[in-house]
Amino acid sequence: MSQNMKNALVVGVGPGLGAAAGRRLAADGYRVALAARRVERLTELAAELGGLAVAMDATDPASIEAGIVRVEEDLGEIHTVVWNVGGGGFGDLEKVGIENLEFAFDTNTRGLFVLAKRLVPAMAARGDGALIITGATASLRGKPFTTALAPGKAAQRSLAQSLARQYGKHGVHVALIIVDGIVDAPKTRERMPDTPQEAFVCPEGYADAISFLLNQRRGAWSFELDIRPHVEDW
Amino acid sequence: MSQNMKNALVVGVGPGLGAAAGRRLAADGYRVALAARRVERLTELAAELGGLAVAMDATDPASIEAGIVRVEEDLGEIHTVVWNVGGGGFGDLEKVGIENLEFAFDTNTRGLFVLAKRLVPAMAARGDGALIITGATASLRGKPFTTALAPGKAAQRSLAQSLARQYGKHGVHVALIIVDGIVDAPKTRERMPDTPQEAFVCPEGYADAISFLLNQRRGAWSFELDIRPHVEDW
Amino acid sequence: MSQNMKNALVVGVGPGLGAAAGRRLAADGYRVALAARRVERLTELAAELGGLAVAMDATDPASIEAGIVRVEEDLGEIHTVVWNVGGGGFGDLEKVGIENLEFAFDTNTRGLFVLAKRLVPAMAARGDGALIITGATASLRGKPFTTALAPGKAAQRSLAQSLARQYGKHGVHVALIIVDGIVDAPKTRERMPDTPQEAFVCPEGYADAISFLLNQRRGAWSFELDIRPHVEDW
Amino acid sequence: MSQNMKNALVVGVGPGLGAAAGRRLAADGYRVALAARRVERLTELAAELGGLAVAMDATDPASIEAGIVRVEEDLGEIHTVVWNVGGGGFGDLEKVGIENLEFAFDTNTRGLFVLAKRLVPAMAARGDGALIITGATASLRGKPFTTALAPGKAAQRSLAQSLARQYGKHGVHVALIIVDGIVDAPKTRERMPDTPQEAFVCPEGYADAISFLLNQRRGAWSFELDIRPHVEDW
Repeated sequence: MSQNMKNALVVGVGPGLGAAAGRRLAADGYRVALAARRVERLTELAAELGGLAVAMDATDPASIEAGIVRVEEDLGEIHTVVWNVGGGGFGDLEKVGIENLEFAFDTNTRGLFVLAKRLVPAMAARGDGALIITGATASLRGKPFTTALAPGKAAQRSLAQSLARQYGKHGVHVALIIVDGIVDAPKTRERMPDTPQEAFVCPEGYADAISFLLNQRRGAWSFELDIRPHVEDW
Repeated sequence: MSQNMKNALVVGVGPGLGAAAGRRLAADGYRVALAARRVERLTELAAELGGLAVAMDATDPASIEAGIVRVEEDLGEIHTVVWNVGGGGFGDLEKVGIENLEFAFDTNTRGLFVLAKRLVPAMAARGDGALIITGATASLRGKPFTTALAPGKAAQRSLAQSLARQYGKHGVHVALIIVDGIVDAPKTRERMPDTPQEAFVCPEGYADAISFLLNQRRGAWSFELDIRPHVEDW
Repeated sequence: MSQNMKNALVVGVGPGLGAAAGRRLAADGYRVALAARRVERLTELAAELGGLAVAMDATDPASIEAGIVRVEEDLGEIHTVVWNVGGGGFGDLEKVGIENLEFAFDTNTRGLFVLAKRLVPAMAARGDGALIITGATASLRGKPFTTALAPGKAAQRSLAQSLARQYGKHGVHVALIIVDGIVDAPKTRERMPDTPQEAFVCPEGYADAISFLLNQRRGAWSFELDIRPHVEDW
Repeated sequence: MSQNMKNALVVGVGPGLGAAAGRRLAADGYRVALAARRVERLTELAAELGGLAVAMDATDPASIEAGIVRVEEDLGEIHTVVWNVGGGGFGDLEKVGIENLEFAFDTNTRGLFVLAKRLVPAMAARGDGALIITGATASLRGKPFTTALAPGKAAQRSLAQSLARQYGKHGVHVALIIVDGIVDAPKTRERMPDTPQEAFVCPEGYADAISFLLNQRRGAWSFELDIRPHVEDW
């Protein structure tokens, strides 16, 4: 590998958005590290991309630290991070529990905070770096079925704003991609067999947005953009 | 006390907003319970209002439960709650720690979730109840100096939206008061001795807003309103 | 009439919100002037309130000026204005025409600008005055069926923000009430005979909001609040 | 010229954003028509791009129609439009006049409506087309110095939302680029000689955003994105 390649870490890699992000970053010339809770699921993609697979549990600050250390030891300093973590069950107040609320916050926001505190000041000191975050419609509003999830997504967006406003001037590009719709992935296809492909968010389109953000000139950085299938009702 | 008086619980009672809320609710005819982490600070006001003082640590679900039980045993079912909890230190990413982020989330959002889960479905079953929440400008956006605080406030607003949308139709009025400015209280006055009174948010005006919200006709309920000193720059 | 009574002008008085505003202002002790395009429709209510009825076409700056002059000559300086004008047909791009777009802008925004330019600086010079504006959900977003209407409502909200930010510090309270839902009025009832009363926005609740805003302490002024029937889906 | 080239019309071409848009579209393979009120200013750029220069006064529906007809006659059907019109003077209520408010609305919103009504249904019938609109921070909020301008920008954003929501499913991509900052152009440089280049919005970055939007996959269309210099305070 070239000494001049930048290292990118994608946190939250499943078969949908995370995999598309990893593939695009590799295609764009980054050395890629893929992180997920269950590292064994990353092996194949990491091999495909000539990248590194690391275990990282976004709910556990020690695990985040360990994963970062692993990447730094193997690849060197991390230039770009894609934070694509963040689940949380759907359901109204009577269906969800405190553990759902905490899980959404811990994965979307607290883990991001831990990672940012660890990596972003160093990016700022180098005057160069990027942190791209996957948001959702729930980042913008709470509905009964997102009672547990939306608070974590709203908190994440708020944190992203604070970081973007602080570190932009130091050369660190923090941006949020609001994914509006259901992502095209094996699981969602299985669950919605009658939904046509055009109604799903296209992971490659999400990866295009990441690539666009990472290549923006410093005189025209975006903080937030939304993506949705063209047929989506919104 | 009359059997027909409604019970109101104010969580988060210091010398500023919480005290004003308690006084107004008492003046409006509610039987009032005041809750704060340090119950000894509530004794005087509780005596003044003929109300109940209970210990409640908003970061601790068991303490919230114990406080609610205490109010129910002493006063009966709780009709109205004012959730005025929610601190969090100021400072940018490099100054604040994970404990600040967690504290802001736990007090603003998680504690509110615990209380709502415990009380709101019962209000809905009775078809009558209210939950008024104190927000802030940080509920609407993140800035570097609110890196730890604003995520918790944004999460709180999102949760409030989910609750309002679900329970409005069942007769539970959930509303958020966005307090934009520095509240007039002994501590803030001491810290800003040269600032004129008119530049502080007036606690009685906040209490007016609560009273207004609680008296709205069902055909015209508000979810969100902002309050600020008329001289505030915004 | 007492010399000390304040004069309030309600622009846009039909049988729904405007009439409720007029009645409440009269009940709150204001001398009331009612304005509408067709002054003959105001005679009865003006008589009921002991107020003045003036013709005012919000699309015509000269008519706005003439109406204001008439009120000033008959009642004296105007302390409070409720701007409840602003229609505009529903329909998507292919159904509506430029005249619909212009009508919505002229009534919601341009007329308000003309009135504000005429009255608000004088209020500011006196250090006392109020301008309450009726917004709608369309103030917040555009949908296909509001292609012609929503731009005017969005423009109105923007203008209201500029005015509130400039004149608040000079003692003029500019505020926007976002009316979310269909107002209870003879016409809407006729059009929706099977809709229960509770599903309509209650005009008296809107009037309550005006009264609340006009009585806010200067240390806690609101700029924006929403009102909707408690059963509304939003 | 190839029969297969798509035609793009850029309305509002000065030396800053409009010129950058035109150059990028030409580089991306579009046949480009440039429109501005003073067509003589377009001659040089049109020659450079091998494109067409047409006169168009965005405040005049007949002029918009005439310009469109000219483009259609010379180049054929219009596939993509960039609407970069929209001025309006700065100043507070006491400084600006109704003509400023109208100019901002007419250029930002009414002209766009006229053009959209003329071109977008035909794009939808073909199932293919794009309309990219230049917004500003004033699209999002009104401040005293934008009393006349911001209503027009807010109205424009609302109209863009209505159009995007209606026509996305028919293959027409409507999107808004929120330009946050002062654009790098000869006039602004002259006015702010001590401001470093990095503090200006980079027109080429704006053109990058247009190119990105026009190349998005249908499964991941953006409606809105913001661009600003990385050093901007926001």
